[in-house]
Formats: sequence, C-alpha cells, structure tokens
Amino acid sequence: MKPQRSSSLQILLVTLGAFALAALFPVATLAEVPSTVDALPSWNDGAAKQAIVDFVKATTDKSSPDFVPPEERIATFDQDGTLWVEHPMYSQVVYALDRVPAVVKAKPELANVEPFKTVLSGDREAMAKLTTHDLEKILFATLTGMTVDTFAAEAKKWTEEATDSRWKRSYTELTYQPMQEVLGYLRANGFKTYIVTGGGQDFVRVYSERVYGIPPEQVVGTAGGTTYSYGQDGKPILTKDPKLLLNDNDAGKPEGIHLMIGRRPIAAFGNTPGDQQMLEYTGAGDGLRLKMLVLHDDAKREYAYGPAEGLPDTKVGAFTQDLYDEAKKDGWVVISMKNDWKRIFVFESAP
Amino acid sequence: MKPQRSSSLQILLVTLGAFALAALFPVATLAEVPSTVDALPSWNDGAAKQAIVDFVKATTDKSSPDFVPPEERIATFDQDGTLWVEHPMYSQVVYALDRVPAVVKAKPELANVEPFKTVLSGDREAMAKLTTHDLEKILFATLTGMTVDTFAAEAKKWTEEATDSRWKRSYTELTYQPMQEVLGYLRANGFKTYIVTGGGQDFVRVYSERVYGIPPEQVVGTAGGTTYSYGQDGKPILTKDPKLLLNDNDAGKPEGIHLMIGRRPIAAFGNTPGDQQMLEYTGAGDGLRLKMLVLHDDAKREYAYGPAEGLPDTKVGAFTQDLYDEAKKDGWVVISMKNDWKRIFVFESAP
Repeated sequence: MKPQRSSSLQILLVTLGAFALAALFPVATLAEVPSTVDALPSWNDGAAKQAIVDFVKATTDKSSPDFVPPEERIATFDQDGTLWVEHPMYSQVVYALDRVPAVVKAKPELANVEPFKTVLSGDREAMAKLTTHDLEKILFATLTGMTVDTFAAEAKKWTEEATDSRWKRSYTELTYQPMQEVLGYLRANGFKTYIVTGGGQDFVRVYSERVYGIPPEQVVGTAGGTTYSYGQDGKPILTKDPKLLLNDNDAGKPEGIHLMIGRRPIAAFGNTPGDQQMLEYTGAGDGLRLKMLVLHDDAKREYAYGPAEGLPDTKVGAFTQDLYDEAKKDGWVVISMKNDWKRIFVFESAP
Repeated sequence: MKPQRSSSLQILLVTLGAFALAALFPVATLAEVPSTVDALPSWNDGAAKQAIVDFVKATTDKSSPDFVPPEERIATFDQDGTLWVEHPMYSQVVYALDRVPAVVKAKPELANVEPFKTVLSGDREAMAKLTTHDLEKILFATLTGMTVDTFAAEAKKWTEEATDSRWKRSYTELTYQPMQEVLGYLRANGFKTYIVTGGGQDFVRVYSERVYGIPPEQVVGTAGGTTYSYGQDGKPILTKDPKLLLNDNDAGKPEGIHLMIGRRPIAAFGNTPGDQQMLEYTGAGDGLRLKMLVLHDDAKREYAYGPAEGLPDTKVGAFTQDLYDEAKKDGWVVISMKNDWKRIFVFESAP
C-alpha cells in the first residue's frame, strides 16, 4: 500500500496546509494572505489559475462588492474526468465487472446467463460489445441487493487493492493534484466543497473523505433507494434496492444539488455535457460565479479526448464541440491539462 | 416489531421554530465556556439532563473508551413535537391552508371544486372533516408547481408573518428552549446537528438556519422531485413536482438519513412512533448511543398528549404506549416536559 500512502499523505498535507492557513489567517481576513504564498503550486500562470485566484479574492474580501458570506460559499465538483482519471473506463464500472465472479458464486445460476457469462469469459473484445442494457444488469447485480454496510465494506476493500493498468497504482492515487489544490484552497477560504457525480453516491462516499477530504455527507451522486428492515438477529438493516431515486447526470445534477444541498453553488467544475446544466444553474444565480471545465488535451501525461477542438472522439467522458462553444460564449473557463497544469499527479516530481 | 407508516397527514408536515436564539446563545461563546458553567440551564437536574451530559463527556473525551472522532458525531432531531410545538396542528398544514386563497386566485376554476371550496368557506367544522385525500390535494396544490425560488420566498414570508393562536407569537418563536440548548451544547462539542423531519424538506430549510442554527444542507425531510428547465428569459429554473421521492417518516427516516447524510447518527431525538426506526437505527451502531423521546405531559405550559401513560389521545403527534414500552425496554430516555424542563420557551422568564 506504499503508493496509496503517498497519495493520502499528500492529501493530508494539503488539508493540513489549509488548516494552518486558516489558523494563521481567519477566513474573514484571508484576503490579507501575503501574495508570496502560492496555494496552487501545480498550476502554470495563466488565465485559468488567475480566474480561480481572482474569484476567491473577490468573494472572500469583505470590502469587495462580490463578497459572499461563508455559509453560501458552496463549490461543486464533478468527479470522473474532473477530479480523477476516467479513461479507459470509469473506475466504478471496473469495480462492477470485478465483482461479477463473487455475484455468480453467490448465485451460480447466473454463470450461463448473459451478460454475466461474457464477463466471466474475460474476453475483452466481447465485453466491449456489451450493450447499455447489459451494463445496467451488471450494475444492479453488483451494486444492489446487499446491506449498505456490506456494500461499503466490499467497495472499500476494492478501492484499497485494485490498480490501474497504465500507472500500476491504486485508482485513488489517480486524482489530479491541481484539482486537489483547488479543493484545499477553497476550503481554506471558507468554502464547503461537494462532489456532484454521475457515479454511485454510495460508492464515492466510501473513499471521498480519505481521498479528497470531502466527507460522505458532501457527496451527491446517482442514488438508489434503500429498504429498512430487521435482520435475523432482530437488528435493523438497510438494504440497497434496484430502484433509481436520482440519476445525477445532466439535468439531474442541479436537481440533485437542490435535493441534497438545498443551496445554489457559486462555483462549479466539470468536464462533459453531463455537467453542463450544473454549470448553467450555478451561473444563473446572482453575483459573481466561477464555472470551469477540464479539457483532456494531454495524451502524453494523461489522455487526449474531445471531440472538441479536433481531439479524438472517445466513448468515455466526451467534451463535445457544442459544450466548448457554450463555454466560450458564456465565459466559462476551459482548463487545458497540457498548458495549465505543471503536473497531473502527486507522484510526479514536484513542480 | 411491525412499524406502521404514519398517516398522509403526518407525512407532509412541518413548521418553523423560535427566533434568533443563536444571538442569545452563540455557539462560539459556548465553546469557550468553562466546564463549570451549565450548558443546559433550562433543564432541571435529573436522569434526562444527566444522560445528555454523560453522553457528551464520554464521546468527546479522548481518554474515554467511548470516544468518537468529530467527523462521526452526527446527531439527528425530529422537528414537530421534538424541537417545537406541533399542536393543535403542524405548522406546515396551517401554511398550506393559508395558501389556498392565493392558489385559487391563480386558478379561479378551483373556487367551486372540493376541497378548496370548503377551505375558502372558513368553516372550521367542515374543514375538520376533510379526508387525507383532500389534504393531499391541498398540499400538492400549495407545495408544488412553482419554482423552488418562488416557493422559498412564499414560505419565508409566511414564517415571518403568521402567528400561533394561543401564544400570539410567530411559529418560529415556539421552539423548546431546552432543546435549543441541547443543539448548541452538541455543536460546541463538535457534533453536526441535523433535522430529520416528516415535514417538507424545502419548507423547513427556509428557516432552519435562522431558527435553529442548522443550515439547509443539514435538513432531511419529506422531499419531492424537481424538474430542471429554462424560463421564458432562457434562464435555468427548477420546478417543484408533485412526485414524492422520500417520505421521511417511520422507516423513511433511516432511509433518508442514509440518502442525505450517509452516516449512522450516534444520537437521535424524537417524540412519536414516526421516529422509532430512526432511534432503533441509531442504537444499532457500535459504541455508545443516545436515544431520547420527548413526552408532552405539561398541559399548563404547553400541551399534554399520549396516549402513553394515560395522557389524552390526540390525532397529532401521538406518543403511543407501545413506543413508551419499547423506550423503557431498550434504555431510551424519556424526557418529561413537565419535570425535566425548567422552562419551555425562551420568552418565559429565565430560570
């Protein structure tokens, strides 16, 4: 678990840094932090970094016309492709596929039933052809039907053990260091940071505090219902149902934000059309707002995909030209991974 | 244990709270209060007060075997009858009835349609005979169909203007001072306090911060869906749908806690069988837990109703004998308003 520790260590350092900063300079006077302290060392100087710093200064300086009281400083972040790597496939889908053998072991009759048969075969070419409906079957089978405690234990174990095939590191190490710095910088300035993800709420909550310093109650995600009942020992249990309560994508993001937070964010970060409505909703409030999109244009250090701006068109996490055009039109800031980030991961050499 | 769903009447209710108590009893000051100062001055010495103090000491003293890290100090409170007055009728029902004229003004064709016709007549005897189905119609008509911003503005105005008929005071002044002290005491000791109410989540969030010092994102309640769309000016709007997502009563309370918080509380407070599952779920976790129920046995200073222990049986907020027996069996602490509280409201003379 050595690599994982270094990731947690970095997060801890960022968090501690934030606390230290907050202790030295109470929120109300953070605007007075000496300009020599760079809260975003993994960012190159440029429009994106400047937009973040300017926004934080304007919303936290009491003498600023754009001052926002601390309780209204809500910032929301998409996860996949915004806070961590989403290629070649969303981590949660890998988790679901990895769980199939255990599901079939518990229900042997599934071994010869599609799509479980194909997943068990390990035939990657056949697996790539699975339909959305097939994938839904796998997700329901692996993410529902157990108690919330059992699910959390299984998901926790997986996130601690599974490794990405390219970097040979835990998925939870593949968070973007520049975005970790934004999370820490915002929190040090009195912001409450939320993850608002299309991924499973229960899944992300398992590691959000360790990986991002974001507690489970600040994770909004795609959520299913649960049923309260009593186990054989008479103890209350909550069981995960195959019933969708919130599809936290597209219009579901502002709807989920209203349901779970009940306040409109003043800053929002995403990377696909699934985040568009969240950014629009954020921007539609009164006062200064920060809306940012991460563009994956760095094939060497991470991945390059669009199809915006002639980047390769991929199935996972598309940044469409329409989204790019809306961003330009509405003054949303597009972050170029290639040009704006000095480093992508904490395990790269420090900038 | 055969938990029963509450009536639809109970499902959709809520209310307000007392006025800016935070100003009288600021949390920041509490945190600095020497341990010799009584954080619960409106409580008489006795088993209930002692249970609270002992629990807080045991879970916050690092040398205690029952120590709980701050991030896991989650305390949940029912609202109606636990934090504020629920008799003779839940405040949110009063709000819904008060809104009927405005609804009919916007849709004049409703004037001769039941149940709106009866409500408009003002005939209290006829109104008392309205069925649950009638009430649902009124609640849907007054709580859905508008944008979330319009609803919040209407509800805010009402909570600032409407007054209770017995005390001639704003509903938000009718919070229980001893419970406000518990909220402040817990927060001063690192607890995160939540309202978990059968009332409407959007309704309670309008005043929760002002009245209880509890921000909107820490209110879990009965919640409907919303739909994201664009207004005539092209601006994004969220509209409240007549579609129930969470019935936050009975089994819905632990289900809602999992959905909205994602952690099991270590302390829970209620007053009816609608809170029973929340207290059971709280108690089923490992480690020390605090489970408390408020018994309304003070006809002089507030109201007296059970039917537990021979108190009058009323329709609103029943404390059943079954609940009383379970409390005694499982070591839940029953708070006697008459014996445990020196004063009920902040506007009574200070103890």
